[in-house]
Amino acid sequence: MPVIQADRLERLTEAIFVALGAPEEDSRWIATLLVRANLRGHDSHGVIRIPQYAGAVKRGDATPKPTIRVLSETPTTALVDGDLGFGQVVARRAAEIAVAKARAQGLAGVGCSRTNHIGRLADYAELAAAQGLLGMLWVNSPASGSVVPWGGIARRLSTNPHAVAIPGRNGPALSLDMATSVVAQGKLRVKRNRKEPAPPGWMIDAQGRPTTDPEAFFGEPRGALLPLGEHKGYGLSLIVEILGGVLSGTGAGRPEAGPARNGVFILCLDVERFLPLDRFYAEVERFIAYVKSSPRAEGIAEILVPGEPEERTAAERRTAGIFVEEETWRQIRAVARELRVSA
Amino acid sequence: MPVIQADRLERLTEAIFVALGAPEEDSRWIATLLVRANLRGHDSHGVIRIPQYAGAVKRGDATPKPTIRVLSETPTTALVDGDLGFGQVVARRAAEIAVAKARAQGLAGVGCSRTNHIGRLADYAELAAAQGLLGMLWVNSPASGSVVPWGGIARRLSTNPHAVAIPGRNGPALSLDMATSVVAQGKLRVKRNRKEPAPPGWMIDAQGRPTTDPEAFFGEPRGALLPLGEHKGYGLSLIVEILGGVLSGTGAGRPEAGPARNGVFILCLDVERFLPLDRFYAEVERFIAYVKSSPRAEGIAEILVPGEPEERTAAERRTAGIFVEEETWRQIRAVARELRVSA
Repeated sequence: MPVIQADRLERLTEAIFVALGAPEEDSRWIATLLVRANLRGHDSHGVIRIPQYAGAVKRGDATPKPTIRVLSETPTTALVDGDLGFGQVVARRAAEIAVAKARAQGLAGVGCSRTNHIGRLADYAELAAAQGLLGMLWVNSPASGSVVPWGGIARRLSTNPHAVAIPGRNGPALSLDMATSVVAQGKLRVKRNRKEPAPPGWMIDAQGRPTTDPEAFFGEPRGALLPLGEHKGYGLSLIVEILGGVLSGTGAGRPEAGPARNGVFILCLDVERFLPLDRFYAEVERFIAYVKSSPRAEGIAEILVPGEPEERTAAERRTAGIFVEEETWRQIRAVARELRVSA
Repeated sequence: MPVIQADRLERLTEAIFVALGAPEEDSRWIATLLVRANLRGHDSHGVIRIPQYAGAVKRGDATPKPTIRVLSETPTTALVDGDLGFGQVVARRAAEIAVAKARAQGLAGVGCSRTNHIGRLADYAELAAAQGLLGMLWVNSPASGSVVPWGGIARRLSTNPHAVAIPGRNGPALSLDMATSVVAQGKLRVKRNRKEPAPPGWMIDAQGRPTTDPEAFFGEPRGALLPLGEHKGYGLSLIVEILGGVLSGTGAGRPEAGPARNGVFILCLDVERFLPLDRFYAEVERFIAYVKSSPRAEGIAEILVPGEPEERTAAERRTAGIFVEEETWRQIRAVARELRVSA
């Protein structure tokens, strides 16, 4: 079973993206974010995506050296065209624009279209949090329907994630990044590559019957993921389609097949327009301590806030290395070989 | 079983609030919103609240004629002090400020402190949607802990609702208003007044064991509600505490008992800064039609979007009248009697 040190995995990933034609700095950023996802325990958004991204370049669906453009803007808003660049590069630019505008105006909203898969949303929300801003994202994927509407049995919605990062004194005080489906599609992809069944409650087969077999999702006829918390996750998912998809100019979910694109909406808010950062930090810290002081359920060692499990996993994996399942490692090495990059 | 016509219930409610000392126009607005909640099937946020609001006035916890003040503002932000007014009146004012600022600047965020229970959040989000804006709310209730953190068994969070209304050609295209707990506390209150058990999965008792007895929540030792979708609803709930509670100056959840206050954060966004309203409407309509076209699960007659079940219930109840359970009706009549209002 391959266990690989983070820096080796980063160097390999960077080399692959350079070989795919991306500028060096962009390649380093993409490698940082992909490996950061692995470090933080979200293998679904880590290097497992390399074959997908390389395939997109091969098919002409991704532009390794994009000309990212601001299509329109006002002091508080912007629309960004990603020129089909790698999502990590496009979303970083959009987040930077949102941060600058929110700093100047208090609030800003930036929509972003024609971009490839942006990876974990938390990374961009945390860019804002690092500047003392509250950062939020809503991201859809209009041609990647994989989730049923509540009451339906066919794919109509993507897993439509939403993320919020709250600034703190030392990095984000908390960082939430969640699919509005019971689980992200990538989590099922990991199960499939590991040849493990999914837990009950994640999905239904094409006839609408509960199933735990990942092949019932990836194979034909195709099953679907369920929305988080029944009608509530379904409702949140619709909101993500409208913010991430419609406002960004990407469009909401549609039946037409097509390359996987993300529709992105980033909102930043300057906390200091409401209260001094020090008072904000103090109240958030007091509140988190109060939440953590709750008596615990059986088998729970500690109550954590979103972002903490990720930080702890990262601390472990920085020393222990990153486990990459056989199948994923095989696929990555095949990509590297084809690009004449030594793995 | 009392079944009462909406207009009669509105007149009675208005008269009660006038007798409590609220201005006539405010009383009419409060009556409109409370009865609108009943009409829309959310009895938990309807006239069942009259005894609670009247009790707050009696104890000096609510100001019937508040002097609502803007404590600070910038072109995109404001902090509003509600002077302990009825929440319906304070939140309407805050929403109006957010709407005006978002119209002028594209985005606006308004926090609101020292206000009583604002009722259904959807009503204020829909005020924004009626003007072609996207409206969002996050509302906490810092002294009303009723929900466990994920992994905990003691109350630390309020039910912390979040609402989003999307503008449409004829009223909101969709209107989501959801507790981040499995269920709103008011829904459990209705079960209690109707002497019905709660469905499994809503709550735990004081020892952390699953229970369906509403008294395990309202009685001593007190149980708690569970967060929606395990760690995800818990994460959303924390965000609501920080936006609704901390940014508004109300504060996040705390152990100290106190009168029920809402911390409110309203965000409005002008769709037209991103795309023309007509194109927005058309894309949202296309998308909703696509979602609704999904084959349906067994026993599902139609796939609906958030806000639609409410509209349909309202159409029915406008003719059939509103069922008010015996116990609630007894309490409302007791309030009316005490205020010398004829029921």
